[in-house]
Amino acid sequence: MTSMNDAERAAWWRGRRVLVTGGAGFLGSALCHALARHGARVTALDAMFPDGGANRANLEGASVLLVRGDIRDTELHSLCEGTEVLFNMAAQTSHMGGQKDPVADIGVNAVAQVRLIGVMREVAPRATVVHASTRQFYGRPIRLPVDELHPVNPPDANGVSKWAGEQYWLLEQRVHGRPVVSLRLTNCYGPRLRIRDARQTFLGIWIRRVLEGEPFEVWGGEQLRDLTYVDDVTEAFLRAAESASCPEVAGRVFNIGGAPPARLLDLAERLIAANGGRGHYLVKEFPADRAPIDIGSYHADDRAFRAATGWAPAVDLDEGLRRTLEWYRARLPDYV
Amino acid sequence: MTSMNDAERAAWWRGRRVLVTGGAGFLGSALCHALARHGARVTALDAMFPDGGANRANLEGASVLLVRGDIRDTELHSLCEGTEVLFNMAAQTSHMGGQKDPVADIGVNAVAQVRLIGVMREVAPRATVVHASTRQFYGRPIRLPVDELHPVNPPDANGVSKWAGEQYWLLEQRVHGRPVVSLRLTNCYGPRLRIRDARQTFLGIWIRRVLEGEPFEVWGGEQLRDLTYVDDVTEAFLRAAESASCPEVAGRVFNIGGAPPARLLDLAERLIAANGGRGHYLVKEFPADRAPIDIGSYHADDRAFRAATGWAPAVDLDEGLRRTLEWYRARLPDYV
Repeated sequence: MTSMNDAERAAWWRGRRVLVTGGAGFLGSALCHALARHGARVTALDAMFPDGGANRANLEGASVLLVRGDIRDTELHSLCEGTEVLFNMAAQTSHMGGQKDPVADIGVNAVAQVRLIGVMREVAPRATVVHASTRQFYGRPIRLPVDELHPVNPPDANGVSKWAGEQYWLLEQRVHGRPVVSLRLTNCYGPRLRIRDARQTFLGIWIRRVLEGEPFEVWGGEQLRDLTYVDDVTEAFLRAAESASCPEVAGRVFNIGGAPPARLLDLAERLIAANGGRGHYLVKEFPADRAPIDIGSYHADDRAFRAATGWAPAVDLDEGLRRTLEWYRARLPDYV
Repeated sequence: MTSMNDAERAAWWRGRRVLVTGGAGFLGSALCHALARHGARVTALDAMFPDGGANRANLEGASVLLVRGDIRDTELHSLCEGTEVLFNMAAQTSHMGGQKDPVADIGVNAVAQVRLIGVMREVAPRATVVHASTRQFYGRPIRLPVDELHPVNPPDANGVSKWAGEQYWLLEQRVHGRPVVSLRLTNCYGPRLRIRDARQTFLGIWIRRVLEGEPFEVWGGEQLRDLTYVDDVTEAFLRAAESASCPEVAGRVFNIGGAPPARLLDLAERLIAANGGRGHYLVKEFPADRAPIDIGSYHADDRAFRAATGWAPAVDLDEGLRRTLEWYRARLPDYV
């Protein structure tokens, strides 16, 4: 399919009522900024969990209404009423957190999704939904690159709950005809990533350490990863929403990749290069207590999404790392 | 592997403490009867949902302690303490029920499983677990027969929750080393099946109608199904438990098939033949409101389980249907 030009896109989004759950998080806030620039009327819902990706600084400068609320118990009817596009980014995303408190994990990622689905059916039955999903539940890949038919084999409780939440949304398309698309993301990075610790990908804490002139740790090193820069993720979500009613997109799951896969050790070197050669790291064995949830190498086969929407990543890894480091240099106190 | 002979099996089960959740249901009660015969000390937990498979008559004559309780809120510690083998049969299994009340559905099939897992970790950390799973979440097969690597694509909310519950149990093996096996069952039939209505497979209501001399309805007719007779299911669960610590079994999911696949129309004819030629049916179109959750044809590739445990179905379809009809003839008032 051909994608919209700038004027068409502006016309598509102008005045459109959009709800972004998890809107103060890393990817949610980036979407909010883009949507607001395109003239959409954006409401961001976020529980602002201290251990999650949310940060008040993430929405600075965006013309967005931020509602603080947990999708498990917020009154959703008034919030969802009139919504034309829902970007469903809210999730409990910590792998270790899911193992420690799987009841809370399934509460956010699956049970609350069922509740949100019920409310949306009542008050916004025709709204488009783009669901933020994850490569995580593929587990340790049995073949690379991983396409959408790769067996699902979650390595942890968080993978189970995230898969379940996604599937409930897909059923809305199959059973009720709602335009729904689910994007299974790989590791994403860029401005507004949580860098305080490793809760949002290993790269978060690497970035912090490099900026602070401290060594960072590489666990293992030979594992392959394909990182997606945040602007490319945002573009994927916008395209998914714009084409969600098309037969080649509606009701589908798509893997989203990004930069060509690289070993963690190469990523470490390239991060240091992007920082002007300043930085150093320690190679450690993958911790024994996390070995059962280690997935080894991953990279996505995202040809289906490219073919269906014309999307392709535009920011290469070295450029993305440079931009990210530059962005944080000016804002470090808000993020550490 | 070679399977146990009768003496070895008796020795294995004698005095063993076994908990069967859903133990008053169709398959759970059949297991309880077999376990009690083998000398195990059996506790059956069952919520006795009126819309489920439970029936007090199911446990008649079995030396089993029946505890009435819902796994969502029963005090599980005292119940699970000392358990050596858990057969985890309790589930909300109604496909339409799952669509109507997906919150209750995920509550039983996934959230309560997480709770049960937590309790078992505390009070029975080394117990073997055999989990009753389902072919259902494969959805409409993209290839036949369906092996365990077939992509998962649940056609309804019940399929989502059943898959999630299974995966939480498998993680207990991967992360904590517990011997866990999950058997993905196809349509099962035989004595103690709920025949009051179609809530437990189409075959239940067919059997009732045939016994009552009323016509039954065949929806569609060309769909293939492979039915498993209850004694063969019971044998599969026993073998799974007996071999759950073996490397070729531990932590695995296995599809369980049974009789060679037959079209629904053939099954209808064979049911009537098993009833001495008495019976008739009406062919109807698959109801439009259920079309989104229709899965078409299914039959299992169960070679992995056969190879790992030596199991093979022993009761062919015509014999199984005859035995089933004969069993119900004497007990119809308890089951309609």
